[in-house]
Amino acid sequence: MHQYPKDDVRMRGFARRHTVVEALAWLDSVSHRLSTESVSLRNACGRILAAPVVSSVDVPAFDRSAMDGYALSAADTDGASAYNPLPLRVVGDSMPGCPFQGTVSRGEAVRIMTGAPMPRGTDAVLPAEWVEAETTAALAVVSPGKNVGRRAEDIAAGAELFRPGRVLRPQDLGVLSSIGCGTVPAVMQPRVRLVVTGNELVPAGSQPHDFQIADANGPMLSALIERDGGTVDFPGLVRDDGAAILESLEAEADVVIVTGGSSVGVEDLSPSLVREHGELRVHGIAMRPSSPTGLGRFGNKLVFLLPGNPVSALCAYDFFAGRAIRVLGGRQSEWPYRTFRGPLTRKISSQIGRLDYARVRIVDGRIEPLAIAGASILSSTTRADGFVIVPDDSEGFAAGAEVETWLYA
Amino acid sequence: MHQYPKDDVRMRGFARRHTVVEALAWLDSVSHRLSTESVSLRNACGRILAAPVVSSVDVPAFDRSAMDGYALSAADTDGASAYNPLPLRVVGDSMPGCPFQGTVSRGEAVRIMTGAPMPRGTDAVLPAEWVEAETTAALAVVSPGKNVGRRAEDIAAGAELFRPGRVLRPQDLGVLSSIGCGTVPAVMQPRVRLVVTGNELVPAGSQPHDFQIADANGPMLSALIERDGGTVDFPGLVRDDGAAILESLEAEADVVIVTGGSSVGVEDLSPSLVREHGELRVHGIAMRPSSPTGLGRFGNKLVFLLPGNPVSALCAYDFFAGRAIRVLGGRQSEWPYRTFRGPLTRKISSQIGRLDYARVRIVDGRIEPLAIAGASILSSTTRADGFVIVPDDSEGFAAGAEVETWLYA
Repeated sequence: MHQYPKDDVRMRGFARRHTVVEALAWLDSVSHRLSTESVSLRNACGRILAAPVVSSVDVPAFDRSAMDGYALSAADTDGASAYNPLPLRVVGDSMPGCPFQGTVSRGEAVRIMTGAPMPRGTDAVLPAEWVEAETTAALAVVSPGKNVGRRAEDIAAGAELFRPGRVLRPQDLGVLSSIGCGTVPAVMQPRVRLVVTGNELVPAGSQPHDFQIADANGPMLSALIERDGGTVDFPGLVRDDGAAILESLEAEADVVIVTGGSSVGVEDLSPSLVREHGELRVHGIAMRPSSPTGLGRFGNKLVFLLPGNPVSALCAYDFFAGRAIRVLGGRQSEWPYRTFRGPLTRKISSQIGRLDYARVRIVDGRIEPLAIAGASILSSTTRADGFVIVPDDSEGFAAGAEVETWLYA
Repeated sequence: MHQYPKDDVRMRGFARRHTVVEALAWLDSVSHRLSTESVSLRNACGRILAAPVVSSVDVPAFDRSAMDGYALSAADTDGASAYNPLPLRVVGDSMPGCPFQGTVSRGEAVRIMTGAPMPRGTDAVLPAEWVEAETTAALAVVSPGKNVGRRAEDIAAGAELFRPGRVLRPQDLGVLSSIGCGTVPAVMQPRVRLVVTGNELVPAGSQPHDFQIADANGPMLSALIERDGGTVDFPGLVRDDGAAILESLEAEADVVIVTGGSSVGVEDLSPSLVREHGELRVHGIAMRPSSPTGLGRFGNKLVFLLPGNPVSALCAYDFFAGRAIRVLGGRQSEWPYRTFRGPLTRKISSQIGRLDYARVRIVDGRIEPLAIAGASILSSTTRADGFVIVPDDSEGFAAGAEVETWLYA
């Protein structure tokens, strides 16, 4: 046997595991929103607003018609009806972007399109439907202001439209455009270097031979990072080699996620590297799966050491790395999963002192735990509809108990 | 006045409006899933699977260790405990991708890492934590099969893993990679040509002058189309000019969305163009806003004529164009909005025979209708948390009534 330093956990097991709550408390204390960048509207949907947006203009910037029809003095329609058509004298057109230039006198009307500026001298729009087509005679009465959109009725100059932290919606982009914004201040997206280690691995899309394994974590974690608003830097697999892993830890990034080699085996190099060259704050967490997870820092980067086991990697990503990526990117720390409450079809057993991540299916409104031996069955997370968390102060849930499920889809 | 053909609605109003139900029935009858393309795993998250996925391999392809520790014959641990350490004779290592080559005899053990192949002659793994580090003596008993992951325990060759129509999740990509897939058969993404018309418009990001308006629909609809799985072809604003609009309708696409000029005004060219050169199946729908909406076909393309008014464009997009884009792309036709049920703080009035799209806020668990005059107030959709639909057979909802809200965010 090799000899290891005294504080090395390799081939000794974790002397003590941190609780999930302790690990999250440290993580939250070091996860800070990134700075701001300017993003074009075209790419701003789903991004997080970094500063308040206040309009400097009125929208609309002028009184406008809300209908296709005829702009006129409302008083000129007094008494008009289908039985008493009142002919209008049409003196011109007002089109969107091309207003009627003159002033309209009593008894006159201007043909007007929806959105077109109201001509001077008019105070209402008689919709086209209420005008006899051949004779342009009014067939109905309108009151002053009818079918007119007033200047600033949508947005008044000086109004605060959006607060920081807002997840920009499609219609927000429309509003931003209408006040003349072509770009928005958005929280920068966390740059995440993904370091997938394991000499047994071949890249996704390769056919593994003999005792090789095709990399499942690279595609899965890339998609999760993007879901949480990060950008992925994943240049390829990394050998179980200290120098190669150390070089990866030195990448230009906000977050480094290392998968594989996070535990107490002889090839588990990453924890020692982070301890030696950075700060390994948490190593070993009282949860199942994902117990051999490490959290730390390397320079200004947050480092997550995830087990290579794909279910453990998924669970540890969701508990720790995803949360930090969301917070760095200005998002809510909470999981982006919807929840469902229902009764358990069978009991879920756990141990006091350990948090459990139990995959479940929803069957006819009831929550059915999947019978899974280990943490290595990735297909359990694709057969499952979601998962139930058993907190570390619980021995589990009885059959029939109402529990909350976090839904994957 | 110009003279228009007899069936032309321009400046006459709609003779009859279609119901939303009629419009959707026609739309659903002509909306068919697009064909299949091969997509790399890296880009497959959120895409729709077009064919079943059946594994041709076992995962894992060999028995493997589920822990870091020592592979051995379980029988060799009989009687081991902290008070009775039983020394192990370690004859080699089994690493992931690099198995122990020989056969292990009784009384021997192989140091093994999680995921590494089980050596011949072993039937259990004693975790590292239960082995005295200096003397490599067993401190606990394991039973046969303990901490061993059996070949095919995750996925057996021949198993159907995913069915067509599945929205691919991050972990699905991991499973697909683990069975050797580098690509997946996915439903093609609908190609959507966006035609934003209006001579009064300037592109998003421009400062409008005088009676110009900055385009709100382009950025908003682009984001909505992408949300629904379509790809956007939006080369820029189009003048209110028949030849220019006709050329846009001839674009290479699955769907064309035209905004502006969809109503009964003199500049509303698109309906006539679609009627003349294609099929204008629906024009005028009994709903508020979005009444001047047209649905039709142009060659093999579905065509949506949306009002230029941004709230109307949003509503008509969500009712019609978005639904078709989702169905063409293999998705569920339903809105991608979550719902919330609660009591109304104030009544919502509507008219029998017309469907209403009422924007609302959620305040302390209650649903508060926004007081909005017209359809032109886009900021109402950014102040709102969502909307309530009043069906066309209803006069509205009383204060206190429990109603369902569709949430924008």
